[in-house]
Amino acid sequence: MTIEPAGGPAPAPPLELGATVGILGGGQLGRMLAMAAHRLGLKAHIYCPDPQSCAFDVTDLKTVAAYDDEAALAEFAAAVDAVTWEFENVPAAIVEHPGISKLFRGSAAALATSQDRLQEKRFFESCGLSVAPWQPVDSIDDLRAALAAIGTPAMLKTRRLGYDGKGQWRIEGGDDLSRVFKALDGAPAILEGFVSFEKELSVILARGQDGAFAAYDPVENTHENQILRVSEVPADVPAPLAEAAVRAAGTIAGALDYVGVIGVEFFVTGGENPLLVNEFAPRVHNSGHWTHPACATSQFDQHIRAVAGWPLGDPGRFADVEMRNLIGDEVLKAPTTGAPGEFVEIYGKREIRPGRKMGHLVRLAPRRR
Amino acid sequence: MTIEPAGGPAPAPPLELGATVGILGGGQLGRMLAMAAHRLGLKAHIYCPDPQSCAFDVTDLKTVAAYDDEAALAEFAAAVDAVTWEFENVPAAIVEHPGISKLFRGSAAALATSQDRLQEKRFFESCGLSVAPWQPVDSIDDLRAALAAIGTPAMLKTRRLGYDGKGQWRIEGGDDLSRVFKALDGAPAILEGFVSFEKELSVILARGQDGAFAAYDPVENTHENQILRVSEVPADVPAPLAEAAVRAAGTIAGALDYVGVIGVEFFVTGGENPLLVNEFAPRVHNSGHWTHPACATSQFDQHIRAVAGWPLGDPGRFADVEMRNLIGDEVLKAPTTGAPGEFVEIYGKREIRPGRKMGHLVRLAPRRR
Repeated sequence: MTIEPAGGPAPAPPLELGATVGILGGGQLGRMLAMAAHRLGLKAHIYCPDPQSCAFDVTDLKTVAAYDDEAALAEFAAAVDAVTWEFENVPAAIVEHPGISKLFRGSAAALATSQDRLQEKRFFESCGLSVAPWQPVDSIDDLRAALAAIGTPAMLKTRRLGYDGKGQWRIEGGDDLSRVFKALDGAPAILEGFVSFEKELSVILARGQDGAFAAYDPVENTHENQILRVSEVPADVPAPLAEAAVRAAGTIAGALDYVGVIGVEFFVTGGENPLLVNEFAPRVHNSGHWTHPACATSQFDQHIRAVAGWPLGDPGRFADVEMRNLIGDEVLKAPTTGAPGEFVEIYGKREIRPGRKMGHLVRLAPRRR
Repeated sequence: MTIEPAGGPAPAPPLELGATVGILGGGQLGRMLAMAAHRLGLKAHIYCPDPQSCAFDVTDLKTVAAYDDEAALAEFAAAVDAVTWEFENVPAAIVEHPGISKLFRGSAAALATSQDRLQEKRFFESCGLSVAPWQPVDSIDDLRAALAAIGTPAMLKTRRLGYDGKGQWRIEGGDDLSRVFKALDGAPAILEGFVSFEKELSVILARGQDGAFAAYDPVENTHENQILRVSEVPADVPAPLAEAAVRAAGTIAGALDYVGVIGVEFFVTGGENPLLVNEFAPRVHNSGHWTHPACATSQFDQHIRAVAGWPLGDPGRFADVEMRNLIGDEVLKAPTTGAPGEFVEIYGKREIRPGRKMGHLVRLAPRRR
């Protein structure tokens, strides 16, 4: 598969101070992006259908409208100088909207690729990167054939709209396949070999409008119930492996002609070719939130710099970090934080729900290496 | 002079997540305080008479009204859970407003003391701290007597409402005193001996509602045209001197029963008793802006934590820093920043004016000591 360069408009002139960045999506990522835009002397305009969105609290420019509301999109486009997003599942209605598309910074190809697990796998392979064995699944016969080829345990994943473990099912030998297939409810899917990994890594990397790269140090992640629990930096992996992960992330961003921050997730296995790409997200990434207290340029500032057409900032890290997500009612302990080296960020979500990311704590320590 | 403890209400219960902090003043300090409140999961409501204020950009709760608008103050008081300020010259109308006064966190005594240079000098002396020689000046005869006692060069300063060198005149031997006195336009003043200092230091220190202290490492400052130009940390002074400065700042905050962040400025002279207190500000301080990229808890987060009745955070520093204010049109270089270790924050002010603080750059470097 060949990825065409993003197409779209030629690189836009750098945003001037006081210009407005339009942000699609009103969750915590949009919130932290808006704060970064402000820090850089820009304005931030949040577009989100949910009037209770936590990003609305941190700026005075907002649009509350559905993502397919053409009139609202046109007004939004007229009010902003560039458009970016907090989430990769930006509906096609927006990408293709004539007013918006010419303000898009990033890459339509990156969005399309990350929205579809099948397209994403093929893209990784076209970049020469290793992935877990996989097969497309559109029917129960496909599922049987895929299981025969890949074996169990295996993961059945919808091609679209999965996150934090949603739209994923683990299949063991002896499972009732027709029941599992039914859970898909007709959604196209892929079957993926279960990777028994030693570690999970991620790389947060930015690419500027000038094609320059800036990578943060790779992150070692621990998931719990398929939700990110802890991120640690530096990752406890050999330097050549860390460097290979950064190179892979750069290959991905470059091949997509992407502008902004991406997060790429990897499995580290015990094999000879230990680095498997799992997935990528063309946006700021949960496993990069520690960059805000620990680096000269946070991933949020960096993404805005890229979108604004400014030179990328220094991703250099001044502390070792352990970041823990505050999930569900763990957020209630925020008012008692303040331990040595502790940085806290709370997302201001209106409602606490089990499994919901409500904030994060970062423990900073002097750099060891 | 004895400073009475702040009086006012007993310590309030800690603010809960989602509570609203009311901030008086809409400049860059209010803006950065609002962003900190958001970071901690609180809401921020800015009160400022100027509709063009840059702090209005970073929150969706605002009141545009005069500081003596009793109805607007009452509405503001009803809408927020605590009140703080970005500037020490909060008008008495607000301090005494029945709705506001019971929400005030901080100390009315700190405000009153910092608003009047004469009261401030007497207060420092009552704390056992050394200050430059000074005399009150209410008449031209006072001025003559003060000059006879103190000598030249000397600084004539209005007792109230001076900042960034405004309301200050340097007097040399042979100056036309009646002309200098006329410049005061009837304002009560003090004459201060000119201190030929080796260095200027500041200490940014927080005091919590529980009386706990947290001090940042002392800062070495360079002023240009009486406006802060550069702040460097660590300050190049002997450890005992740095410790004495921190102790003095703690004495000041404690004596005022103050809650929040204060900035205390010192002169370091060559004499036997080298540390003179210059002035203090009961608020976050320009010379502490570097704490945002360099510390686990920035001065802004710290002030909000204190105001919220949360335990203070760790003021530990993870990098050495050199902070430069971006003054006037220097801000226009913001879109070309991105040098190694460079962090940038821009205030979003609508109009560039000579001498106006428009943003700051912080250069971070690995800690040496």
